[in-house]
This record gives sequence, C-alpha cells and structure tokens, in this order.
Amino acid sequence: MRATRFFISTLKEAPADAEIVSHKLMMRAGMIKRLGSGIYNYMPMGLRVIRKVENIVREEMNRAGAIEMLMPIVQPAELWQETGRWDKMGPELMRVKDRHGRDYIIQPTSEEAITDIVRADIKSYRQLPINFYHIQTKFRDERRPRFGLMRGREFTMKDAYSFDRDLAGMQQSYQVMYDAYVRIFNRFGLQFRAVAADNGAIGGSGSHEFHVIAETGEDALVYCPSSDYAANMEAAEALPLADERAPAQAALQKTATPGKAKCEDVAEFLGLPLQQTVKSLVLAVETEEKEKVSKQIWLLLLRGDHELNEVKAAKVPGLANYRFATEAEIIETFGTPPGYLGPINTKLPVKIVADRTVALMSDFVCGANEADFHFTGANWGRDIPEPLVADLRNVVAGDPSPDGKGVLAIQRGIEVGHVFQLGTRYSQDMKATFLDENGKPQLMQMGCYGIGVTRILGAAIEQNFDDKGIIWPTAIAPFEVVICPMGMDRSEAVKAETEKLYESLLAAGVDVILDDRGERPGAMFADWELIGVPHRIVIGDRGLKEGNLEYLGRRDAAASNIPVQEMQAFILQKLQGK
Amino acid sequence: MRATRFFISTLKEAPADAEIVSHKLMMRAGMIKRLGSGIYNYMPMGLRVIRKVENIVREEMNRAGAIEMLMPIVQPAELWQETGRWDKMGPELMRVKDRHGRDYIIQPTSEEAITDIVRADIKSYRQLPINFYHIQTKFRDERRPRFGLMRGREFTMKDAYSFDRDLAGMQQSYQVMYDAYVRIFNRFGLQFRAVAADNGAIGGSGSHEFHVIAETGEDALVYCPSSDYAANMEAAEALPLADERAPAQAALQKTATPGKAKCEDVAEFLGLPLQQTVKSLVLAVETEEKEKVSKQIWLLLLRGDHELNEVKAAKVPGLANYRFATEAEIIETFGTPPGYLGPINTKLPVKIVADRTVALMSDFVCGANEADFHFTGANWGRDIPEPLVADLRNVVAGDPSPDGKGVLAIQRGIEVGHVFQLGTRYSQDMKATFLDENGKPQLMQMGCYGIGVTRILGAAIEQNFDDKGIIWPTAIAPFEVVICPMGMDRSEAVKAETEKLYESLLAAGVDVILDDRGERPGAMFADWELIGVPHRIVIGDRGLKEGNLEYLGRRDAAASNIPVQEMQAFILQKLQGK
Repeated sequence: MRATRFFISTLKEAPADAEIVSHKLMMRAGMIKRLGSGIYNYMPMGLRVIRKVENIVREEMNRAGAIEMLMPIVQPAELWQETGRWDKMGPELMRVKDRHGRDYIIQPTSEEAITDIVRADIKSYRQLPINFYHIQTKFRDERRPRFGLMRGREFTMKDAYSFDRDLAGMQQSYQVMYDAYVRIFNRFGLQFRAVAADNGAIGGSGSHEFHVIAETGEDALVYCPSSDYAANMEAAEALPLADERAPAQAALQKTATPGKAKCEDVAEFLGLPLQQTVKSLVLAVETEEKEKVSKQIWLLLLRGDHELNEVKAAKVPGLANYRFATEAEIIETFGTPPGYLGPINTKLPVKIVADRTVALMSDFVCGANEADFHFTGANWGRDIPEPLVADLRNVVAGDPSPDGKGVLAIQRGIEVGHVFQLGTRYSQDMKATFLDENGKPQLMQMGCYGIGVTRILGAAIEQNFDDKGIIWPTAIAPFEVVICPMGMDRSEAVKAETEKLYESLLAAGVDVILDDRGERPGAMFADWELIGVPHRIVIGDRGLKEGNLEYLGRRDAAASNIPVQEMQAFILQKLQGK
Repeated sequence: MRATRFFISTLKEAPADAEIVSHKLMMRAGMIKRLGSGIYNYMPMGLRVIRKVENIVREEMNRAGAIEMLMPIVQPAELWQETGRWDKMGPELMRVKDRHGRDYIIQPTSEEAITDIVRADIKSYRQLPINFYHIQTKFRDERRPRFGLMRGREFTMKDAYSFDRDLAGMQQSYQVMYDAYVRIFNRFGLQFRAVAADNGAIGGSGSHEFHVIAETGEDALVYCPSSDYAANMEAAEALPLADERAPAQAALQKTATPGKAKCEDVAEFLGLPLQQTVKSLVLAVETEEKEKVSKQIWLLLLRGDHELNEVKAAKVPGLANYRFATEAEIIETFGTPPGYLGPINTKLPVKIVADRTVALMSDFVCGANEADFHFTGANWGRDIPEPLVADLRNVVAGDPSPDGKGVLAIQRGIEVGHVFQLGTRYSQDMKATFLDENGKPQLMQMGCYGIGVTRILGAAIEQNFDDKGIIWPTAIAPFEVVICPMGMDRSEAVKAETEKLYESLLAAGVDVILDDRGERPGAMFADWELIGVPHRIVIGDRGLKEGNLEYLGRRDAAASNIPVQEMQAFILQKLQGK
C-alpha cells in the first residue's frame, strides 16, 4: 500500500473523553472515530487490524471444525421471549419496533437464533456434534459506554455454538474450543491467561475466560505460579488460612475505641495486628410469600484485612438475592451505626456467616454493637455460638492455592474471550431435541464460545504501548513494515531504491506500506510510532552512499544499519513465525 | 472441504411463502433460512457465495483506489436530522430509542455518517479526491418484504462515497466507479446492463443503474442494439413518432360507442386502428397557500396503445406532487365517468398536456365527455386549442432511439448496483467544506455508489437456473468443483483415487468439496445440481477400470469420460479465467 492511496489521519492530542491509554492511542492514530456514545467508525487503519484479528479467529475456528455462517443483527422478540431473556435482560438489550409495531431486538448474542436453526435442521444423533459460528456486529446498550472499544455499545464478536448428544460430547466440544482459543491468542502474539470463571446463574459444569494480561485490566486474575491453577477473582476459592482453631486464651473484654470505626484504626489503636480483627458486613434479603414481604438481616464476618467476594456471598444458601442493608436497618438491628458492629449482643436476631478464615480465629477483636466500643478476646463457642461457615472473601497474593501446589499470585487482565458449557439451558426452553439411536427425543447439550473481536484491539494496546504510541504484535499490526524514504522527491537514488524494495517486499507477500506522502522525517517517524507498525525501514542518501538502509524495530532503542542487498532477507527473517 | 465437515441441508420442497425461483432455490439448497419477515440467516452454503461476491467487490474497489473502512449499523438520529432525511424518509427508516430515550436509526445507507467523518477529517484540497467504502449490513423496513434476498429488510450492501473539489472531479470519480462496476459484474460472470437512471428528487447530472438481465426482473431496461444507448424505462426518452402533424381531413363527429370504455374496444367497434385513438388520464394537484388548499385538475393525453410514465409525468411543471383523480373528481370536472373522457367540452376548466406523439396526431378519436359517446375526426387547433406538449409515455420496442442511431429494444433486469452523482446535496446540509488553493471554503462534490451484495445472489439465480436447481457462475459458486465418489466405503480403488484427486485439486488452489457423506448417487447428484456447483467429477469403479473419471459441467447435457491422469489439468483448464 502506498500512503497516498490510503487514509492516514493522526492527532497530536487525544479528545478529552478518552480516559484510558488504548482509547487515547486509537483516536490519536486515526484507527477509530466516534460517531455516537459507545459507537465508533472503524477507520481504514483500524479496520486493517480488525480484519487481521478476524482472519486468525476464522482460520482457527475452521481448523477446529466449526462452520461459519451469519445470523441477522435484527432478530424477532418471539425467540427471546421463548427463553425468557426478553424479560430477564434489562435495558442493555436494545429493543426496536418495526413499522407494524412488532418487537425486535438488536442482537447482543445469538443463542436463540442458532437454537432456532438447529431445532429445525438437526433431527438425528447422526448430525451431531456440530459447531456453528459467525463473526457479526453486536449491540449492548451499556448504561455508561466508555473506554473506546473496551466498553462500547456496538462491537464485533465471534460467537460459536456447539451442539452435542450428551454431556461427555459437550465437554469434548468445549475442550476443542478451549484449545482453539489458546492457538488464537498465541497467534495474536499477546500475553494471555485462561482462567476458570464463575458460572453465574446458568450453572453447568464449566466456563473459562480468556484474558489479555494488562496492568490496566478491570479483572483480577488469580493463578498459581507453580501449578496450572488459574481463576477469575470471582471464582477463586479461598482456603482457610489455618488448619484448626487455636484454643481461647484471652477473656472477652469490652474496650473503648473512641472514633475508631475501621479495623485498621482499631488495630493500630489497640496495638494489635490487623489480622486479629474481624469486620462485619450487613446484608438484607427480602422474600415474598403470599403477597407478604418478610426481611432477614444477615451479618457476614471477614478478617480485618480481607475483602468480601460478592459472587461468593450470593452462593450462600438464602443469600442469592441479597442487598447491602441500609444504615437505618443496621441501627434498628444492631442498635448502633456501622463501624462498631459485631456478632455479640445484637438487638434483633440475625443470621451470622463467618468466612472460613474467621471461623478458625481465636481471641479476635470485633465491634461491641455500641458506638466507640469493641470487644477484644472474642472466641467462637465460648462468647458466640458457632457460626455458619462459608468461603466469602477474595483471595490475596500469598494465599494457598486450592490445588495444594503452592501459593497464589494475582495479576490484572482484560476479558476478551469466554467459553461456556451451557448444557440444556437453551435447548430446554426452545425444545431443541434430536432423536437418539433408539429413536427417542433428547435435549441437545450446548456450549457457547465468544471472542470480542474489536475489544482485542483495545486489550492489545493496553498490553503493548509506550510514550510514543502503540506497539502492535506483527500478526495483527495494520501493516507489518513501513518504508520511510527521506527526500524521495529530491533524490533519484532514494526514489529508485525505495520503489525497488517496496515492490520486492510486496512480491514476497509482506504487508508493507510505503510512506510516499512527502512528510518531514520527524512527523513521518512520529506517525508510524504512534500507529505502531512493528518494523520500520528508512532509506536515505547518507545510508545509501555507504550501501546501507536503516532498520528500527518498534521496541528497539536504536536503529541498525543493514546492507541494501540484505534488507529483504533481514525483514523476512524478522517476520518468520509471526 | 469435506462435506462431512460442512453443513448441507437441502429440501425437496420450497416453503409456501417462496414466490420466485431464486427464493425457492436458495431455500431448497439450504443457502438461507428465514429468521423473521424479510430477515434471513445466511447458512454456511449461502455465506460462501456472499463472501465470494464481497471479495470480488473488495478487490475491484481497492483497485479503483477506494479505501475500505466500516461505519456503524446504529447511527444517531441527529445526523439524519441535519440532512432532513429523519423527516423525509418514512417508516422504511428503522428508528430505535436507547435506554436514555435518545433517537437512533439502523442504517439503510451511510451518506450522513461518511459526510460527518469527512467534514472533520478533510480540510484541504490537497486531501481530495478521496473515496471511502464499506461492506456493511443495512436495514430497510419494507412494507411488504418478499422474494427472499431480493426484497428483504436486512441485507448487505457495499456503499462507496467519493468527495471531490469540483464538478469535473466528481464526474471523473464517477467514471472510475462506473468502470469498476463494469469489471465487477464481468467478474461475477453475469449478463448485465448499465442503464441511465432517473435522478429523482436529488437532481444532479448523472446516475446509472446496473442490472442483472433476467426475464423475471422487476425493471424494464431500454436499449438500442445498434448503439450504446441504454436507460431505465423511467428515464428513457420517447421521441415523437412523426416529424410533423398531418393536415386535418375528417370532420369532428360525435359517435355513439355504447359500452366501449377502452380504446381497444372503441377502435375495434369503429373499425379504426388503435393508433388513431387517444386516451385520457386525469390527475389532481393540491396546493396549499396561506392555509387555503386549492386544487387543479389535469388531463393527460396518450395514444391509445401507449402507457403513462409516472416519473415523466411528475416532471411536467406543476405536476411534481400529482395524484390520480378520484371518480368523484372526474365526474365533477368532465360530467361523465371514466371511459368517455376527452379534451373537448369539459364541464370545468382543466389543464391539458398531450404526449409528444398525441400532439402530432390528426383526425383522432377521443371521448366526448358523455357516457357511450366518442368524437372521431378530432384535430388540434381546429377543435381543441393547441395543448401543452411533454414526453409522457413509456417507450415501446421499435421506438426510435433518442440518440438517432436505430430503434429501441426492451429487456427485463434486476437492479443490483447504482452509481450516483450527488453533487452538494449532503455537503451543503452538513457543511462539508474544504479550503481551496486560495484558502477559501468550498463545498465538496460528492458521489455515491452502491452494490446490493446479498441481492446479487438472488439476481444471479434468476438469470441462471434450470429445473434441477441453481447454475452458479464459477466465480461466485459456493464451491467450484464437487467430487462425488461412488461407494467410497466399499471400494479401496475409489477411496484412494478420490483422496488423491481431492488433495491434489486443493493443493492447486481449487475450491473443491468432496462429498464423503455416503449418500446414494441419485440423492448426491440431485443435491449438487440443486446447489449449483458448476463442475462435477464422479469417481466410480466402472470408470476406474477403464482408467476414466466422469466429468459433468452443470450446463452439460451429458457427462464425459476423462482419463484419470488428465482430470486435474482438464479442471484447471475449465477454471481458467473464471
């Protein structure tokens, strides 16, 4: 490609609404352009990256035996009513009426559409397993779209759907997809991690998220450096930090802790380690029976230095629909405002759940349900009845790995893929059955597998940038190589060598752009560093006199001189195994 | 591709709602599957054709210097309000509100979005000309979606938009696109015709439609076999059929024509040629001024054997917003119901417009404005004041070509492309200006260029089918070649030769599918004839014994024996220049 036949539009400054580095750099590099809130034009430079991502995804999906098709963007509401998602999905589901007043949605995903196809076209066990995918525009009406392509409303997703005869088949299809995802993310040239994920309300036996590792990631990933354990923070099990509870040694004592409402302050004030304090969180659950609403207050206990895992809390039987209690409810129940709460002497009865670690503590500190007072020397069994025990907290670095093979580490990631064992969640509602070997109808076992195609761009940049701009991995760079001639209009030698190398690289199948715009070197170099092309060749009279061209890798600190006649081989070598 | 790794789903019968052959065959061949009214899943077999169409379009657009990008499907209403199309486009424009109540549309086309980009990013004449395109999903909420992909609601369109400094530049960009379209349609392997089209309300100097020729086409295409004149029926000029009016010879005479309300019946009853009769059409135009609505009745006169061209009628000054008059209005104005109307002795004053041919007639027959009576021997100037004259009629085969180079012929076509000189229609409303050489802001001159990607599939089939199914041109066939082994599971020889040829054709870059499903020959052959793969190779024990494979072109009446070792070269020869 010649730059004069392409469209390059870079900016010195990112627009004010760009909060994160990938959003800023994509705007500055002219890869995307905002059309509306969370809605972006993919400019020619950005589209090239998207196409490369799509092609890698497509090749690996095909190789894994998935079959490409294309389902519509606008889908009839009826299908979504069949599965209940028309009601369950809130305003995130974009709804639209046609001229006849009929309801449609703009698809955020396609479980309903594919199940509708399969229940009509797949009739026999002989047609299974099968896996369909499409790479299609999706829409989710996010409440607060932001971060450019990271949390936009319109985006491109690859979604695949497998259908199997039984659970074992589904698990096999799932593994095939998992393996394909590993190949895909390896081919992108990105550092990534697959982690076990929470299955949410759907249940089922398995789900993994694929995260691009980046310090700016929204998700905390838990892994064990000495084993292959990896899970999303939401799903990572926290083992108890002790084998058994030490015997009580201190007496229970009410102690004045004036103005010390936080565990950190209490510990410091009392001269005790934070690990000896227990914090109290108050939840409320309302249940409706025969039009009468009843409310239950719950007290959750965590060690002072630990944090609640809200997903785990919702898994405690009875807490599925919890909310945090209001200050009024807290005062009514405990007789004191937050900061001095504890499991001893509550005003009204509450259900108490202790985190596994708390349940094994002795002689601990907790609020006295009286403003400005805490208890020290609190002990289970003696001062407080034995509590319900559950895994309630987020793991922290250094915690024992659930697989018993070492200690946990934490890094941050950006979710860009998700594989999911759905089981019969959709086939049941939509009556997607097949006839088995005995001619009996059976529900299909389903899996679904998503990759956020456009999100990959943002994630790749969050992982790979410097103060000059983007650093694309070669496999998904808009161009692999840029040729920057110095004074092509003045020097016949530069012009001749430039054209020769350009044509020769093109002929060798290199995705090369020739910057023939005639920009000054400084502006030209700045553009390509911002855009993030991984390999740069500079052709100038000075170098040519010595028989050299200049090469600079996007991550290199300094350029290297490469003899003219060796440059092509040098570049091909660099691109090998891209 | 192996058929067992692909998804093939053919039907014996088309669904009842499929009215036209392309819709029936696409459904039967399992290329599309209905999801909702005018909304189709593109099944794996259909998607392959779409991708081939897209790739040809993409290659030729790139070659013509257009730059690919991608604009969103959901677009903010504000842009459409700027150009007035938010109000002007009726219910065909699919409107949607987001969770905050803000208005959006699902794009039917992208003039607004691209002009919004260009007005921000193109600042100088040095950046022009430029041409952007995208291949993107569109939505038009058709009142009555039908004919499968021919008049669906969701469809794929390639739309390109050129921006130029001046009219001459725009015309050059237009010509470049016109030439690219000719290459594209040639590469599809379809018979097509480019015709001058009506510019509609937009005006401007030029517009051509590209039609796939098909007897079932909705549009009548007018062309001159002895010149390059070609126009859509709407836009084809009808020259007068005589050089001058013959002198009046007959006397005006009122003649009883009881029950003869049609020109054909009157001519037969009077024993006169139909070409001597004149038919009357009554239009009404309402105009509102200072909140007072006034109505003007118009009488349009056509020769008895001619038909009104409604687009031409609307171009007569004063008739832009005409409608056909009601029977009540006709009786009020002419004192008689339709069938006996004419320009002589109308009850109320009317404006009379005669078609060019009528204006040159003498001694003609017309209604007497009295039930069951006509005048014969009517003459302009003597019996009726000289009328306004305009080109009002559709041309018919045999009419003189407007370029004076022969006579016109008519064939039917399906519109699949449209190139349009827009001028400043959008740049004016949206203030898309650039600074010229003198630093003065100038409006950009714009062109737009569409190809109905998914519609091409329907049109190609309407042109190429037989009673067995579809006959794809090789360039857009889902597969170029199908290998049908006979008894692959029984015969080692068949299996070995099949695998060898399959791998060898794949290696030669042939898009081949191997039908390894184990179907009976009859069902297997019927599937591939229905699906329309252009080249079929049958491998069987009988042929192999004689060292032969069997080849059948999709249009061939009988198969040919080709020696085993020559088959690959034979196929490559057939595919040459595809």
